[in-house]
Amino acid sequence: MNFDKMSLDLHQKHKGKLEIKSIFPLSNLDDLSVAYTPGVAEPCRVIASDPSKVNELTIKNRSVAVITDGSSVLGLGNIGPEAALPVMEGKAILFKHFANIDAYPICLDTQDVEEIILTIKNISPGFGGINLEDISAPRCFEIEERLIEELDIPVMHDDQHGTAIVVLAGLINALKVVDKKLDKISVVISGAGAAGLGVSNLLLNAGVKKIKILDSRGTLTTNRSDLNKYKKDTAILINSKKPSVKLIDAIKNSDVFIGVSKPSILTKEMVLSMNVDPVIFALSNPVPEIDPQAAKEAGAAVVATGRSDLPNQINNALVFPGVFKGVMGSKHKKITSDVRLSAAFNLAAMVKNPNSNMIIPSLLNNAVVETVARAVVID
Amino acid sequence: MNFDKMSLDLHQKHKGKLEIKSIFPLSNLDDLSVAYTPGVAEPCRVIASDPSKVNELTIKNRSVAVITDGSSVLGLGNIGPEAALPVMEGKAILFKHFANIDAYPICLDTQDVEEIILTIKNISPGFGGINLEDISAPRCFEIEERLIEELDIPVMHDDQHGTAIVVLAGLINALKVVDKKLDKISVVISGAGAAGLGVSNLLLNAGVKKIKILDSRGTLTTNRSDLNKYKKDTAILINSKKPSVKLIDAIKNSDVFIGVSKPSILTKEMVLSMNVDPVIFALSNPVPEIDPQAAKEAGAAVVATGRSDLPNQINNALVFPGVFKGVMGSKHKKITSDVRLSAAFNLAAMVKNPNSNMIIPSLLNNAVVETVARAVVID
Repeated sequence: MNFDKMSLDLHQKHKGKLEIKSIFPLSNLDDLSVAYTPGVAEPCRVIASDPSKVNELTIKNRSVAVITDGSSVLGLGNIGPEAALPVMEGKAILFKHFANIDAYPICLDTQDVEEIILTIKNISPGFGGINLEDISAPRCFEIEERLIEELDIPVMHDDQHGTAIVVLAGLINALKVVDKKLDKISVVISGAGAAGLGVSNLLLNAGVKKIKILDSRGTLTTNRSDLNKYKKDTAILINSKKPSVKLIDAIKNSDVFIGVSKPSILTKEMVLSMNVDPVIFALSNPVPEIDPQAAKEAGAAVVATGRSDLPNQINNALVFPGVFKGVMGSKHKKITSDVRLSAAFNLAAMVKNPNSNMIIPSLLNNAVVETVARAVVID
Repeated sequence: MNFDKMSLDLHQKHKGKLEIKSIFPLSNLDDLSVAYTPGVAEPCRVIASDPSKVNELTIKNRSVAVITDGSSVLGLGNIGPEAALPVMEGKAILFKHFANIDAYPICLDTQDVEEIILTIKNISPGFGGINLEDISAPRCFEIEERLIEELDIPVMHDDQHGTAIVVLAGLINALKVVDKKLDKISVVISGAGAAGLGVSNLLLNAGVKKIKILDSRGTLTTNRSDLNKYKKDTAILINSKKPSVKLIDAIKNSDVFIGVSKPSILTKEMVLSMNVDPVIFALSNPVPEIDPQAAKEAGAAVVATGRSDLPNQINNALVFPGVFKGVMGSKHKKITSDVRLSAAFNLAAMVKNPNSNMIIPSLLNNAVVETVARAVVID
């Protein structure tokens, strides 16, 4: 199917993807008096005298802002806030579809870290959660950290943590298929942006001991002088002191390849150099790091991609709706690493008998959102 | 009817008043591939290469941000952003109901003028219009002026201009009933906040020559030293050099009283001191400046209020949906004083034979929004 053309046509036809709907009736003057003035003054008064009531009387605690600065959109790069709007609208309707959360796209006309933080804090009172999206590394890390610290609603940069959770869930089941253990495997992550560092950190939290992670110049190592603070921290965490090497050398004798980088950078020869029964997650989208068929020919025991037309679709949409639903319904509204681990293990457990073509639930499985949401309730 | 209780109950039942609805189908994986990745990349690419396409491919040009800082909400005052959210949600569903515009409430956690301007500019790329709401004077004036200047989408502070337009429309017809002319009448405006100054300025633009406007201390005059810049400017515009006087003196021998101030400040005696066939707009809501029955007993020829249960309801909802619809559909996206005058005169003209109980169309008249929208197209 030509999704590009179908998508463009439908965007043109509808002028975007979402609309606002009133839940209140508005068919006569009395309805207007209830929904708006004078009746609306009463919920205002109640909230003014007890601020916690805002969660009961308004959209706040069922609404999420899907926020980008357009600096790192899909595979498209820094295309700016207007061109990023179709993606944010898409995310918003996925929130509604999967979790019945009312999300609204906010596209920012600034790429300055302090301005982004200030702007998001300033618009936060009407929202119950903040989903950061497609903000480039390393700015995304500071923005997320600061907002988590300074706001009392859940904040998650989905490119980091949604990806990390769904990758870990898939990996847990892939390892069952090949009969290997998290704490024994050697993992190579290609891509040291938001997704790569997010995955690396969560795998460490999950008990993985041996991780190599590469940016376009090679493995992140503590002796590299060209790393930003976040890459440096990761190099320290994975205890990578050796000289930096390229993918072709890094991947030798590893068990798992996780690509969150660029199309077609992984060759059959590289897969052949891995340990027996290698697991390949080639998540660059729409064109993976290696053609799944080629990976299988080179001996891959499990192959996953981000594509919906292939088995084992590793897609953030399995994660973010349930995580926000669960945490927004919780008393403690922080998305911690415990929350992320719990989401991943519970999502993985939904697949009772994993096999090479079934390591992750389908996006069409209606039980996913509830399972993830229940997993992350932290009262 | 007890609108307070009905409103509170309904807000509690639904947790707010609006929801997001997807326009795109989302029932299978292909649908997801069209609405989101990979298909969504195509409209992104198109907008990235031709920014004007954002109006054709996204919600931008049918969406309005309804923005407040919660500093001057209804008759409730400075109740803050969370307590203001029910009003902003209400406004959002009125936008949808009357003009099919998808509006979203944004409640700001700052009352600093520069921060408000910066925040609104930063979130503007996803919106086709900015409706400022319930921001206290005089900050509202600078915020609106600066945003009009610095953004290329329509910006309107509804408390000022929505009120001014609907008041002028009502006044045009009220004067027909009493057979007086705009350029001959003497008008007294009680209230020199956002609404009062907005009304005063538009009446001047419409040709009214004699205006007195009062704040809580008395008439605004050029010799008062306690006026902010905007009150001072208005005193200069209306050429008010006399000593400041209270309402009881200011209103003598005037033709029109417009109250946008406080309940029950206008007495029968004051109405009796006005010229023959006085026109009384007592718009304080829900309790007017004078009981309409008392005003009539004192000789008022036409009485209007903000209430839906009385004749001649002067309500901004007659104006803002059509103004935004018209201007957002226009090539030139500024809401100028010409736009405001045109909206008022066209709205007034909808009442073919005005009488003392019918000076303004009903909120339930479906033709209002189109009439106003057509009036303000400025291509």
